[in-house]
Amino acid sequence: MNKRLKIKKPKIPKLPKIKRAHKIIKNDVPGTLTYTGIKEQKHVSVELIDYSPTNYTTSTVDDVSKAFNKQLAGDISWINVNGLSQIDQIEKLGQHYNLHPLILEDIVDTNQRPKIDEYPDYLFIVFKMLYYDEHGTFMNEHISLVLGENFLITFQEADGDVFDSLRQRIANAKGRVRNAGSDYLMFAIMDAVVDHYFTLIEVMSDRIESLEDILFANTADQDITQDIQELKREVLRLRKAVFPFREVVNRLEKIDSTLIDEKTVTYIRDLYDHVTQVTDSIDIYREMTWGLMDMYMTTISNKMNEVMKVLTIMASIFIPLTFMAGIYGMNFDYIPELHFKYGYFYLWGAMIAVFLSLLYYFKRKKWL
Amino acid sequence: MNKRLKIKKPKIPKLPKIKRAHKIIKNDVPGTLTYTGIKEQKHVSVELIDYSPTNYTTSTVDDVSKAFNKQLAGDISWINVNGLSQIDQIEKLGQHYNLHPLILEDIVDTNQRPKIDEYPDYLFIVFKMLYYDEHGTFMNEHISLVLGENFLITFQEADGDVFDSLRQRIANAKGRVRNAGSDYLMFAIMDAVVDHYFTLIEVMSDRIESLEDILFANTADQDITQDIQELKREVLRLRKAVFPFREVVNRLEKIDSTLIDEKTVTYIRDLYDHVTQVTDSIDIYREMTWGLMDMYMTTISNKMNEVMKVLTIMASIFIPLTFMAGIYGMNFDYIPELHFKYGYFYLWGAMIAVFLSLLYYFKRKKWL
Amino acid sequence: MNKRLKIKKPKIPKLPKIKRAHKIIKNDVPGTLTYTGIKEQKHVSVELIDYSPTNYTTSTVDDVSKAFNKQLAGDISWINVNGLSQIDQIEKLGQHYNLHPLILEDIVDTNQRPKIDEYPDYLFIVFKMLYYDEHGTFMNEHISLVLGENFLITFQEADGDVFDSLRQRIANAKGRVRNAGSDYLMFAIMDAVVDHYFTLIEVMSDRIESLEDILFANTADQDITQDIQELKREVLRLRKAVFPFREVVNRLEKIDSTLIDEKTVTYIRDLYDHVTQVTDSIDIYREMTWGLMDMYMTTISNKMNEVMKVLTIMASIFIPLTFMAGIYGMNFDYIPELHFKYGYFYLWGAMIAVFLSLLYYFKRKKWL
Amino acid sequence: MNKRLKIKKPKIPKLPKIKRAHKIIKNDVPGTLTYTGIKEQKHVSVELIDYSPTNYTTSTVDDVSKAFNKQLAGDISWINVNGLSQIDQIEKLGQHYNLHPLILEDIVDTNQRPKIDEYPDYLFIVFKMLYYDEHGTFMNEHISLVLGENFLITFQEADGDVFDSLRQRIANAKGRVRNAGSDYLMFAIMDAVVDHYFTLIEVMSDRIESLEDILFANTADQDITQDIQELKREVLRLRKAVFPFREVVNRLEKIDSTLIDEKTVTYIRDLYDHVTQVTDSIDIYREMTWGLMDMYMTTISNKMNEVMKVLTIMASIFIPLTFMAGIYGMNFDYIPELHFKYGYFYLWGAMIAVFLSLLYYFKRKKWL
Amino acid sequence: MNKRLKIKKPKIPKLPKIKRAHKIIKNDVPGTLTYTGIKEQKHVSVELIDYSPTNYTTSTVDDVSKAFNKQLAGDISWINVNGLSQIDQIEKLGQHYNLHPLILEDIVDTNQRPKIDEYPDYLFIVFKMLYYDEHGTFMNEHISLVLGENFLITFQEADGDVFDSLRQRIANAKGRVRNAGSDYLMFAIMDAVVDHYFTLIEVMSDRIESLEDILFANTADQDITQDIQELKREVLRLRKAVFPFREVVNRLEKIDSTLIDEKTVTYIRDLYDHVTQVTDSIDIYREMTWGLMDMYMTTISNKMNEVMKVLTIMASIFIPLTFMAGIYGMNFDYIPELHFKYGYFYLWGAMIAVFLSLLYYFKRKKWL
Repeated sequence: MNKRLKIKKPKIPKLPKIKRAHKIIKNDVPGTLTYTGIKEQKHVSVELIDYSPTNYTTSTVDDVSKAFNKQLAGDISWINVNGLSQIDQIEKLGQHYNLHPLILEDIVDTNQRPKIDEYPDYLFIVFKMLYYDEHGTFMNEHISLVLGENFLITFQEADGDVFDSLRQRIANAKGRVRNAGSDYLMFAIMDAVVDHYFTLIEVMSDRIESLEDILFANTADQDITQDIQELKREVLRLRKAVFPFREVVNRLEKIDSTLIDEKTVTYIRDLYDHVTQVTDSIDIYREMTWGLMDMYMTTISNKMNEVMKVLTIMASIFIPLTFMAGIYGMNFDYIPELHFKYGYFYLWGAMIAVFLSLLYYFKRKKWL
Repeated sequence: MNKRLKIKKPKIPKLPKIKRAHKIIKNDVPGTLTYTGIKEQKHVSVELIDYSPTNYTTSTVDDVSKAFNKQLAGDISWINVNGLSQIDQIEKLGQHYNLHPLILEDIVDTNQRPKIDEYPDYLFIVFKMLYYDEHGTFMNEHISLVLGENFLITFQEADGDVFDSLRQRIANAKGRVRNAGSDYLMFAIMDAVVDHYFTLIEVMSDRIESLEDILFANTADQDITQDIQELKREVLRLRKAVFPFREVVNRLEKIDSTLIDEKTVTYIRDLYDHVTQVTDSIDIYREMTWGLMDMYMTTISNKMNEVMKVLTIMASIFIPLTFMAGIYGMNFDYIPELHFKYGYFYLWGAMIAVFLSLLYYFKRKKWL
Repeated sequence: MNKRLKIKKPKIPKLPKIKRAHKIIKNDVPGTLTYTGIKEQKHVSVELIDYSPTNYTTSTVDDVSKAFNKQLAGDISWINVNGLSQIDQIEKLGQHYNLHPLILEDIVDTNQRPKIDEYPDYLFIVFKMLYYDEHGTFMNEHISLVLGENFLITFQEADGDVFDSLRQRIANAKGRVRNAGSDYLMFAIMDAVVDHYFTLIEVMSDRIESLEDILFANTADQDITQDIQELKREVLRLRKAVFPFREVVNRLEKIDSTLIDEKTVTYIRDLYDHVTQVTDSIDIYREMTWGLMDMYMTTISNKMNEVMKVLTIMASIFIPLTFMAGIYGMNFDYIPELHFKYGYFYLWGAMIAVFLSLLYYFKRKKWL
Repeated sequence: MNKRLKIKKPKIPKLPKIKRAHKIIKNDVPGTLTYTGIKEQKHVSVELIDYSPTNYTTSTVDDVSKAFNKQLAGDISWINVNGLSQIDQIEKLGQHYNLHPLILEDIVDTNQRPKIDEYPDYLFIVFKMLYYDEHGTFMNEHISLVLGENFLITFQEADGDVFDSLRQRIANAKGRVRNAGSDYLMFAIMDAVVDHYFTLIEVMSDRIESLEDILFANTADQDITQDIQELKREVLRLRKAVFPFREVVNRLEKIDSTLIDEKTVTYIRDLYDHVTQVTDSIDIYREMTWGLMDMYMTTISNKMNEVMKVLTIMASIFIPLTFMAGIYGMNFDYIPELHFKYGYFYLWGAMIAVFLSLLYYFKRKKWL
Repeated sequence: MNKRLKIKKPKIPKLPKIKRAHKIIKNDVPGTLTYTGIKEQKHVSVELIDYSPTNYTTSTVDDVSKAFNKQLAGDISWINVNGLSQIDQIEKLGQHYNLHPLILEDIVDTNQRPKIDEYPDYLFIVFKMLYYDEHGTFMNEHISLVLGENFLITFQEADGDVFDSLRQRIANAKGRVRNAGSDYLMFAIMDAVVDHYFTLIEVMSDRIESLEDILFANTADQDITQDIQELKREVLRLRKAVFPFREVVNRLEKIDSTLIDEKTVTYIRDLYDHVTQVTDSIDIYREMTWGLMDMYMTTISNKMNEVMKVLTIMASIFIPLTFMAGIYGMNFDYIPELHFKYGYFYLWGAMIAVFLSLLYYFKRKKWL
């Protein structure tokens, strides 16, 4: 696992600005490449992992063309491109593997939703890696993947990913991966991403719980509305990333392509189960999050009730007593009670009686 | 029926942490077995029931390999494995029956949602047994089931289940079970689980009712929000377990497999009706539960109304009276009324008149 | 029409306890018969109507076996069984007509949802007769129906139904029924039940209206929440009974069975239209009912507003006046106004001026 | 256009009572005709329009049998029947054109929802003409239509409709109608009804807007709840009439019948677009209407807020001042301030200072 | 990009009046052309762009007939008609290209929802261009498009559009457009419109954010309800325009027509992805917008709470103190405390004690 998981106080940025890749430049010809993301990684680093059941080499280069001549015939090549801002690198790859211009556009268009496109010689898949960065900001990494006969190319926006354990499994020849084709490698990558969704869902569950705790503890201040609204937005964005991804996996399971081995289909079906678990949970958290606002409303109303009760008790007790005192502050020539020997004390008695009976009344109403 | 049903005060734990089986260990190769549940049953106990129309033997062993040589050719074998934490036991079973590694992973992954997987030689079904444990906690037991030609293997997280009456029926040769194949045994097990869902639904109905009673009786305190929120969560979790299970039963009814006898299909169709009854009820309880929050809001508002009325009545009556008393407490040199012989008593008369007319006013407004 | 329709003040019981038939007894073998209803009709009464275009006989017996030998070959037999608690009677019928054990179980399981099962020799249909009993309680009568080549068997929980007009039509040879087969008889029975749903819908519409009237008239007290909640529940239960019934009719229309004559299909299509009318209305009433709670909330808030206004007006007027009186009740050695000749009357003038300008202010704010 | 469109203040009646045609009379044989509507037009007036590309005659008779011998062979006959209460007239028509009894029942059953029934020799279509009558009541006119090879029969509840412009087009041989078959005539009639739906939608839009204006202007009184509830009901009833009608048009477009010319299908497809426009708008208005209640709630809360502010300001200012005056109204033997020369004026100064600082406080809180 | 994008303060007009084209004139024959829009462009301007890989001419004429003889055989012709109020111009085009009368009606009917109609020789597509005009009003431009073998005709309501960059690409032979057929031109036009939807979505996102900021900053005044309601309406209208457009693109992708080249289908699939991105975002914004009203409600309630607290604190502190002062303002003959030497100061001490303990109480309750 990489450092992306060291989350503590997630902050969610405002609604993301959605822009299309070829919209930025004037004369926006469809098929023109422009990176639309916000991760300003200046260089492109290309990682090449070349393996067969018996062989394994790895190298990192700063230009894709250097990678091409390191591939061995008969081996599976995994080419992982980090950084999408160097358009020429992407284009070189496109020319070498004969990729359709629209694919190249989708690779650099970070707003492209998850999808799968079938071409005669390769499959093209787009999905999202969601994570909290070191500042706790909810980030969206655009990952594209081209699966060919003996190769798999992955494109990421920046260095650092969740595939380290997969790299070790290839290096150490652990599990099925070294003995299977590029399709199983693709499965393993998608599997790692889905694994990471579970981590996100756990964080989300924790946040819902902590908001509920705040609400139950009645210590909510106004900022909680903001937290709830942000949580809603986060759930909606997760939904937006995961639901189309489930469709991608579903179609992958049913695809009729020579690129996908029948044995791998079993694994993809299993992956589909896992994604469905994620989407089920998202829908539950969605309902719980929406319910938080209702809970907050009742919390506010309960507080107002308490304020009102204090006012009512204080006013209802002292207003009548003040009236009684007012009576005997009058200057009428003839107020007989004023001249009673213990009049003042009698009045105190009456006042205490009124006071106690009101107290009793509020007690019975359960306001005290 | 077993002791799980002795429920009194169900408490629901927080949102469950969802983790994937092979995520816990580093280098998480898909197909690696790790038990993800929370029930720490150290040992695995394997129960073998071997029967034919004329024959019946039962035994409990602590290692699956001991069970294999007790099976008689031609008999139906029901192997029930309690406890999923001893990975090696599960793996031995997998080797003996030639089960796919992904199946073994799903058996120990307690977060796997209900599903059915068809393999050439067997069917694999996962579902959930929901119950309240002795502390009233809402528990989720992960049950997997492998149906083969002459055998049925069931996997449970811990000892104790709802199949005792089924065991007796096999022992006493009651009903169809001894004369039918392993498919009918599978039906009987799923039927027992659905029966138990009805029990859960009854408890849920009781809880909704008791919350409604509290709300109608106007004795709701703040904690009721928590109860409602917990009930919501429970309904959502039940939904999450039962709805995919309905799909499993539905697919089982339509499956084209030699493992399922045509006669059993009739029973499975019946089972489908029963599960649908459960899902219908869940949806009704869902709507009722969501409505509880609205009811609570009106309860709070009604209470606030009552508080306000008391304040308004007290203040509206005594503030004018106090003003009247204040008038004759002034020290003007010349206030003629002060020197009237019965001025004081006249004022009392006026005050009582004001008091009574205000009372009448509030009475007419139905505030008293 | 029978006495069930003499409704006045419908009371809805609590959420019904849902239990499965074979759950009550220990060792609950699927296919074991146990009546789960609450209508304790001790005896079973069997009514036999035997008719052909030219012939008509009717008789009531207390044992089904007596009915079998009264049937004439070539005639249509309608066997109507009232009372489901005498299991042996149901079993005799099952043996005579060779009914599947699961059908018998569903006949006595009053919680079985509406459904249709096709068997080679007969159709089995379950639906619900909803009505208010003499105490205004919302009741649920479980009706099952077996349609065979020349016979129709109906099962009801207790005596008394809505088929009297149908019986007369058979007796008097009115309409198509005497000239048509048992399939038309089945249609006629389902038609009578749908007719009765319209009656229920009228009652429901009346109750929504009367609740709205109460809310508009602003005379709602707290119990209205309870009424609304009960109405919600009633609507949900009606939905639960009618929506699957619509599916039954829909499948009946499309069924490929020699038991259903093509001419009857036209009538069934018409029946489907009528059930759809009922479901449309239920959905409208559902939305109206859910809206009632919102209306009630605004009613409460409006009332609170009114209370607040009275308090505000009274306090805002008399608090400043009391302050003015308080000023001249002070005992300073030198307060010049006190010694003005008409000081007291000047003050009264000032007070009246303050009073009037506050009145004017509240008038302008439309609070008076 | 006819007078139905002169709407000013629409009033919506209570939820309509839904009754089935053959329910009113005892012994309700399916197929028995009873008019269920509320428009008591005693007589039936039959209008016959007979036309071909070259020929055109029109006549109005008071008995359908008189119309039959006015039809010319080879011409298209449009028979328009106004008034459904004279059952015998409908039955004569049914016999002459050999209509199925269930069709006749649906013609007089004003609660029949929009539908289309295909018979070998004719198509039967039911839909609703919605309009506000001269009193502004929201009315529901039941229109049925039988399309045969050379004829079209329309049934309406009362005189007066929206087809006048169509009649003129036939008379003046404008447009396609005289050169097309009875199927185009049917299209033209349905087109006129959809045109009228647009009028309704405009009225509804106006009402939503005027309610919004009232809410924004903050002049809403309690009756607005009633208006909103009525609007909801109206939207729901419009939905109930238009959505199944859209299905009718959709099926008409795809129907495989020799009665519908291929050229007319293009027009029907266009009609479908128009109905979909209406349903789209209904769904938008639905959401807007539901939102009105929320707006009203915030309006009430805002008002209460304002009331509270006035109370709080008045009480918070004068209660402390009254206290200050109370202090110096005490009769202690020794209160030094009372004997200060300018004590009274000093106190006034203090009071004004308190008054101003409180004013400043409320100003800063933006309450003034 | 044209000036339509210079938006600053969008104002949304009231719910648009929906009228059908042929409804305005009496005797509304289907197929009669009437422009229903509100953009009163008196003249029609026709722009002709004629191109092939090697050739390119452009011209603007004021009568469509002048355009016809400028087209070169073998070239692709793009005829762009601005202004729909000159019916005769549209009709001339219709005759020249043999367009169906219903197409012409849909071209001028600005309320026609997005759709695609297939005709043997051409495709007809309707969609909406949404934008804010120079006054910030949310405008709806009706665009129709006829795609033929070698030509593409577009119809717009007024001059000025978002196709300038496309015109330049054709002029400068940039991108694929000059080498592809009229189908690619159609794609390029639709692509430009979808690009513009992204701009709208950005504005909408900004507005939601600014409303949230206002709500979080607690500076919301009553007008915000109006803003939220307008935003809701805008989202609903955008939905109404974009969702059917997605269906159009979807059908275009699957259409079986010789007019669409297989290579273009790849581009259309890409377009579909982009529209889906728009619809996904609309649904998220919809949920966020609906949530704003809830947030506003809590804001109001929080404010009321604050008002109540101030009142409660002031009243609860000074009412008891006033009572104490009232006691010693009484005129009883014998009140011992009055004659204590430091009685007045003792009382002050008591008052300060009461004052401080109440302050402490409110502090502990977190009201201060």
